[in-house]
Parts: sequence; C-alpha cells; structure tokens
Amino acid sequence: MDDLKNIPHIEEINHRGLFAGVPPKHTATFQERTASQNKVLPSLEAAIRATGLQDGMTISFHHHFRGGDHVVNQVVDALARMGYKNLTLAASSLAAVHAPLIQHIKNGVITHIETSGLRGDLAEEISRGLMDCPVVFRSHGGRAAAIRSGELHIDVAFLGAPSCDPYGNANGYSRDEDDAIACGSMGYARTDAKYADKVVILTNHLVRYPNAPWAIPEYDVDYIVVMEDIGDPKGIMSGATRYTKNPKELLIAQTAAQVIDAAGYFYDGFSMQMGSGGASLAAARFLRQMMLDKGIHCRFALGGITGQIAAMHEEGLIDRILDVQSFDLDAALSLRKNRFHHQIGATYYASFLSAAAVDQLDFVILSALEIDTSFNVNVLTGSDGVIRGAIGGHPDTAAGASLSVVVAPLTRGRIPTIIDRVNTIVTPGDVVDVVVTDQGVAVNPRRPEIAKKLRRAGIHVYTIQELKDKAEALVGRPDPIRYTGRVVGVVLYRDNTIIDTIHQIDEGPTE
Amino acid sequence: MDDLKNIPHIEEINHRGLFAGVPPKHTATFQERTASQNKVLPSLEAAIRATGLQDGMTISFHHHFRGGDHVVNQVVDALARMGYKNLTLAASSLAAVHAPLIQHIKNGVITHIETSGLRGDLAEEISRGLMDCPVVFRSHGGRAAAIRSGELHIDVAFLGAPSCDPYGNANGYSRDEDDAIACGSMGYARTDAKYADKVVILTNHLVRYPNAPWAIPEYDVDYIVVMEDIGDPKGIMSGATRYTKNPKELLIAQTAAQVIDAAGYFYDGFSMQMGSGGASLAAARFLRQMMLDKGIHCRFALGGITGQIAAMHEEGLIDRILDVQSFDLDAALSLRKNRFHHQIGATYYASFLSAAAVDQLDFVILSALEIDTSFNVNVLTGSDGVIRGAIGGHPDTAAGASLSVVVAPLTRGRIPTIIDRVNTIVTPGDVVDVVVTDQGVAVNPRRPEIAKKLRRAGIHVYTIQELKDKAEALVGRPDPIRYTGRVVGVVLYRDNTIIDTIHQIDEGPTE
Repeated sequence: MDDLKNIPHIEEINHRGLFAGVPPKHTATFQERTASQNKVLPSLEAAIRATGLQDGMTISFHHHFRGGDHVVNQVVDALARMGYKNLTLAASSLAAVHAPLIQHIKNGVITHIETSGLRGDLAEEISRGLMDCPVVFRSHGGRAAAIRSGELHIDVAFLGAPSCDPYGNANGYSRDEDDAIACGSMGYARTDAKYADKVVILTNHLVRYPNAPWAIPEYDVDYIVVMEDIGDPKGIMSGATRYTKNPKELLIAQTAAQVIDAAGYFYDGFSMQMGSGGASLAAARFLRQMMLDKGIHCRFALGGITGQIAAMHEEGLIDRILDVQSFDLDAALSLRKNRFHHQIGATYYASFLSAAAVDQLDFVILSALEIDTSFNVNVLTGSDGVIRGAIGGHPDTAAGASLSVVVAPLTRGRIPTIIDRVNTIVTPGDVVDVVVTDQGVAVNPRRPEIAKKLRRAGIHVYTIQELKDKAEALVGRPDPIRYTGRVVGVVLYRDNTIIDTIHQIDEGPTE
Repeated sequence: MDDLKNIPHIEEINHRGLFAGVPPKHTATFQERTASQNKVLPSLEAAIRATGLQDGMTISFHHHFRGGDHVVNQVVDALARMGYKNLTLAASSLAAVHAPLIQHIKNGVITHIETSGLRGDLAEEISRGLMDCPVVFRSHGGRAAAIRSGELHIDVAFLGAPSCDPYGNANGYSRDEDDAIACGSMGYARTDAKYADKVVILTNHLVRYPNAPWAIPEYDVDYIVVMEDIGDPKGIMSGATRYTKNPKELLIAQTAAQVIDAAGYFYDGFSMQMGSGGASLAAARFLRQMMLDKGIHCRFALGGITGQIAAMHEEGLIDRILDVQSFDLDAALSLRKNRFHHQIGATYYASFLSAAAVDQLDFVILSALEIDTSFNVNVLTGSDGVIRGAIGGHPDTAAGASLSVVVAPLTRGRIPTIIDRVNTIVTPGDVVDVVVTDQGVAVNPRRPEIAKKLRRAGIHVYTIQELKDKAEALVGRPDPIRYTGRVVGVVLYRDNTIIDTIHQIDEGPTE
C-alpha cells in the first residue's frame, strides 16, 4: 500500500490511520457466546459500579410499572448501602409505592427529584417540606425535550424491562412466553435509553437473542441485571380497565362526545386521545356507538392506551394506535399482537422540539382536579394543597389538539372543581377549549366558533363564571389553603418554562 | 407565582425562564391540517434551498433502490442546475445507473465520493482517473460508525422512500396499498436520517398520517418532496431471486453447507447470514433440507434478506429475521406481513462502535472476486483492476461471525480466483475462516480446529497454496495489472482504518 502522505486529500479522508490488524475472533457458537460473553452483570451493585456513577450525578427511571414498580426502591436501596449521596432522581413519574424514598431523602442519598408527578406518603412529605431543593415537575413531552436538549442530563438510567436478551434488546412484554409480566409499551423509557450516558436494564426475564421487536435496542444498553423481582404484575396493570357505572361520569362522558361531534371534530378519519379516567373511558364508549351509527372511523388513537381503544382497533374502527404507555393488560396484549398497534417513544409522542404526534390530534379528553375561571387546569395538587397527581401529557395534548376537552364533576364532595384561581397551574387556560361538567358546559372565549357550533347543536353553553357560581351555590366557597413562603415544587410548562410553583402547606395553628 | 430568585437551587433548575404564553393553537381538523400545514415542499429545488445547502458540503443517499434508483441523478441534476459546486456525495452505495454523475464530476459539482461500491461506467471512469480526490470505500458497518462518530458528517440527506406521510414518517413499502413500489427495508437510510443535519424525503407516494410502522420517524425529517418518479420498480427489485442451475454453484453450495455442519455451527438455534449470489442462495436450499432432516431450526437470519429466507421463516424454520436490506420483492412483502421479520438499521446491523448483530452470527456465506494465499478477499476490483463491486457487509460479517465461509469458483473463464496477492484487500485474511471452491476447500491456518473437524467429517482440506496451484494449473498465471502511481480509491476496513488503496489503471502502450 502507498505511503499515505502521497495520496491527494488524504488529510480529509484519514481519521484513524492505517489498518493495524483485527481483534481476536469469536469462535464459540452464538449460543455459547450469549451464555458467556454478554452484558449481564452478577448483581445490581456490580452494575452500579460498572456505570461509574458518582455522588451528585443524575439517575433516571421510567414509570411503566406504575403502582407495581419494584425497581426504584431496590436501586435506591442499593445506592444507599453503597454510600452514594446527593443524587438527582429523574423519573418519568413516581407513585405511592415509592414512599421508601422518604428515608433516602432524609439520609441525603437523594437530594433532588424530577418527575411528572408524586402520590402517597412521598408526596405528602414533600408537600410538608421534606426537601431543600424544590421538586421539578415536567410534562411527558417537556421531559423528552429536556433530555434531548441536555437540560436534563441523565448520567445513569435504570430501566426495568419485562423482557431483555443478553445484549440488551429490551421490551415491555415477552414475545416468547405468555405468562411473563408485561407493561406493554415502554415509550417513556426509550428517551432515557437513547440519551443517558449509561443504561442499565433490570429484568426478571432474560430471553434469547434477538428479542425482536424491541422497545430499546442493544446499542443503547450498557449493562443488564437479572433480578427475581422487578415488579408486582397486579400493580403494573390490571386485566382490563373498569367501565364506570357512576351516573355523573356517564353524563359527563355523553356530553363530551356530543361536544366533540357538535364542534366538528368527529368526522371520517379523525384522530383522538382519551385518558384512563372513568369519564374518558365512558366517552370512548359513546364515541364508539356514534362511529357505528355514522359509519365513520378513526385514523389514529394516541397516547396512553386502554383495552377499550385496542378493542375498537380490532373491530376496525381505529386504523392505527400510537402507544406511548399501555394502561392495562388488554392494551399490552394488543400491542404484542396487532401490527398496527405501534409503540412510540416520548419524543415522538409529545416533544415540542419537533412536530410530535400530539400536534396531529383532533381532540383530547382530559381530566382535572381544579379548573379556574381563566380555564387554567390543575392536575397536580389537591384542594388541601398537597401534591397528589401527575402532569402526564396534559399540557402537551391540550396544546397539540385542535379541541381540548377537560372533563370533571362540578363538585367533589364538598369541594368545588371550578374556582377563581387554581392552586397550581399545570395547563394554561389558553390551550383549554371546552370544560364539560355534569352541570353544564363552558367554552373558552378564545374559541367563539366552538360556542356557536355547540349552541347550534342544542348544547347550552355557560360561561365559566356561571359554572363557578353554580359550584359555589352547591358547596360554598372553600377556605383558602394556607401555605408557607417556602417553595417545594416548580412546575414547568411543556416548553420547559416555569409556569407555577408549589408551596409548602402551612399546618401551624390558625389565628 | 414567586419571584424566581427566592427559590432555593433555582439556578440549577431554571433553563428557560418564566412561562411567556403559548403559540397560536391549531383549530383546523387534523385532516385539513395535514393537507395545508406539513413538511411537503413544492419542488426539489425548494427543498434544496430550504436545507441551506452550501458549496463544499456533504450530501447523502441510500442504495435501497439499487439499479432502479432515480433519486441520486435527479437530485444531483438539480444541484448542478442550481449552480452548486464542490460537493461530497456520500452514498451507502452506487450502481451502474449512476453513470450521469460522470458529467457532474467533470463539471465540478461533485468533487468527492464516499460509497460502499461502484459499478458500470462511473466505476470505469473513476478507475481511469476521473476524480482528483480518491473515492473512499467503506463497509456498511464502517459507514454507520463513521456517521455516528462524526468522521463522516452529512449536511443534507436526500432519501427516497416508497411511502411517506406529510410529516415525514417514511417506509420502504406502503402499508395501505399493494400496488405501490417497494424496496422493503430502509436499514441503511436510517443512519443518515438520524445523524444528518437536514433530511429530505423524496417520495412518489404520499400516504396518510401516521405511516406506521415507519423506517424513519418524522422527528428525523425536515422536508418532503413528492416526485412522480423516484425509481424503476423493475430495477429496485425483481419478483423473486432466481435459483441457480449452474452445476459449479450447486457444488460449491452443497460443500459450503457440509462445511458449516462439519465445523459445528449447524445446531438447533444457530444464526446465519447468506448473500444473494447464486451459490449463497443454493446453500440456503441445502441448509433448509438439512434443517428438515435434522429437525433443527435457526434462531435468526441477518442482513440482506431474500425471499428464500422469508419462505423458511414462514415455514417455521427461522424464528426471527433481522432485515437491513430486502434483496427481492418476496423479502419486502414478508417484511410487511410477518411480525418477526424485523427491520433494522445499519448501526444495529454492523457498527463496530457497539455490539452489533453481526457479532452474534454463527456463520456467514460470502462471495469473492479474488482470494489470496493469506486469505485476504477482494470484492471491489476486477481482474483488470477496474472497480466493479461493493464492500457491503463483507468485512463486518466476516469479522463478526464465528465461521466465515467465502465461496467462489476456482476460476472464472481464464481468470484464477485464488492468487498470490489480491489486487485490493477488502476483508483481511485474519477474519476469513474457510474458502470453498468447486475444486476444493481450504481452511485458514488460524483455525486448525476447523480443519480437523472437516477432515473428521470426510471433507478433504487443501492448503490455500494448493488451491492456488490448482487454479494456475488450469488457467495459468494472469499478467499483472498495470497501474499508474495515482491513487483513485481508499479502502477502509470496518473500523475505518485504511486497509488498502486502489490505483488508476495504466492503459498506456506496453514496452
């Protein structure tokens, strides 16, 4: 071969110099190799050491195991035993099952949290001032964007997977065995896997290579730990989401379906996203009947997917499902079985940094803890000021959909849902189009054409102020929540700007 | 909301400041929006302008349309018309159909080429000194690695797609219509789409959103151009790959199958890759019969996929197909139809920067233009020194597989295949394990255990020198190729080090 320096333009071509021989070649059979040369490490501790995790770094988790998750607690327990301090825990969401984190926060293992939501004792304690640094709450789309842009840099992702092969191809269900645990889509975990410096898959089910199709490809995975227990199947998902018999929810659902139709977003080839709440599920049932009656079909259903949506897909009423999170076992089984039930990642779903699937929604049906007279919605803090919810894709879908419909009972017990000012703004009123309650419908004044269409269809349209007055007439005006001056949470809008703060609740004696 | 400066740790949290309102909301229906607000530009020229392409930049293309490709020529014609100069053309491969590039090289539009291979008039001209800067030849895995590492930075990728929706979800076939053109997998294009600064999809078939499943996701796509003609279906792929009746090829194929079995890599759960050449295809048929006879199955087949492999998958003989390139229409139809026929990208297939699928191969069957007594293989230049081939995945799979079997006739016409020194080293002998010809088998001395096993199975093992002598006894020793001192091509090994150079052929009068 030539002396390199004589070759024209070689300085633009030559990045790595001359060929210097090959590394030793595999000779064992593929089956022997996968058993002996792979990414599986003998213990969680070994994997943590291998990642090079240091005090002060950021670790991440997904929430596809919901209330059945056993990954976060086991990993943080291990980190505590190993003496780690001052870590940031960035989860796609946290649930009541993560109460043991309280101890690890007190001990200084975890000093900062990023999440979509908090529930249970951990949420209670944080609302009472457990942490020095406020919790950062992001939407699912905001989180995906922040991870991609580097605003949220993940040093090590610890991702539970119901199936994984010895090289790291991981998925939310098993292709080979029916009795393995399943979480369906692993959409939120895909962003972590793609951008984290190091990725550890925790699985209870090591399957043969290649675990195809996969949610996470092997080239995004560094280490694998096989654990006896990564989660409780019952807590990960129920067999099927329950259909509501609550007459208030049924009324809200029926009205929401009528509103969507009247507003002009119910046509052959429409697109939609529905939540998993009682009224949302019931609305899907009303929409289904309307689809059959009108002979129209849905081009795609997006987001968190229920068995009800999967059944409509199998019926031929929905062409495509884009599934970022499977809400129940029927949805997970459909993902495994149906070719046009397609798993998507959080970036594809909702990131504002590029056109995302939420931007193609005709309508979304969303729930609310509180709605105010500016149409701002709170899904994060309860009427007592305590954190008890999650942002999820609420602002992402409300902003992306042509018609965002927020459904809620006008009152819950003695608590009005519609008030002067929500305690926490999660979704700004400017992207909330219609509020549907059991006591009437209000349309955002920014969408006068919708109000006109609803009236033309015979739907009475109240002002949001009228609905608020109705609620107050029923249950009165609640005492204001007493807060201290201390900020315990910072709420980001989907573009990762700060939209609100959450204060520590004040439980001192009243005057 | 609080004054930000009073919030503890706010400087670590606040990257984007306070919420400043939402952009205007979509109100048109999804169907209306996809028609009016999308990534489709009115012309190729408009798309080129939108990308911000400048003189001296790098453009890229995939070769999934093979000899039927009409994308490269149309794009480069447009660039020439628009006055661009001094561009680098980085294609995953180029074919005889790209001869019009000769004019664009002469005119200074294209001044550098990176590719896996060259054929036809363009290859002839380059071999005769058309370009000042040598062509860089990379393997498919090397290219994926170079794109990911930034050694090959792509400014604008122009990617032909047989289906694409208005937001850029693109695929190598249509999910909705059977009569559209199809190329099957778009595995090599996925790397370009992921890493190029700007991505333009050229399609003749705009389908409804979401074009799910997709090879390329919308977030990797910037612009779309709808063109009447992106390729000739007949050139893109034939209906089914022909089964050889050539007795030499059949003998080679049968011997290759026996060698694999005798060497111990043919067992229940093995993995394999086969080429699309006559002997490779015939070998698959022999292996199929052996699988039926022995009652064993293949865990996965990798790489360029033929209808024959797809048929074995449908028969239940192959569990999983990992398809980076569909060689014929039957393979493309199987990809569309069969859930475990899975599309993979070039990184997953063969990049050396991470564990890749090639590393899990038991065996690969590969072809050769020349093999030398050090087992080096040439698949790039002919016996006349003219470029007439492509590296493809040759070195990637030879290095990754436990057993690499190179198949070739001992002689072609009056030309010996086995010689003292290949004209161009593409795959180094150290990763070539067995050579199978119609006149006998040779085993690399680095693998004495294989030779022993073959002998035990009754297969006569020659030295490579003996095979060379046999060839020379049949057809004599060819005259050496006369080259000039000028380098027209630089060949990189899969790790992107320089393994050989290709010289301009010397056609001056002999002494």
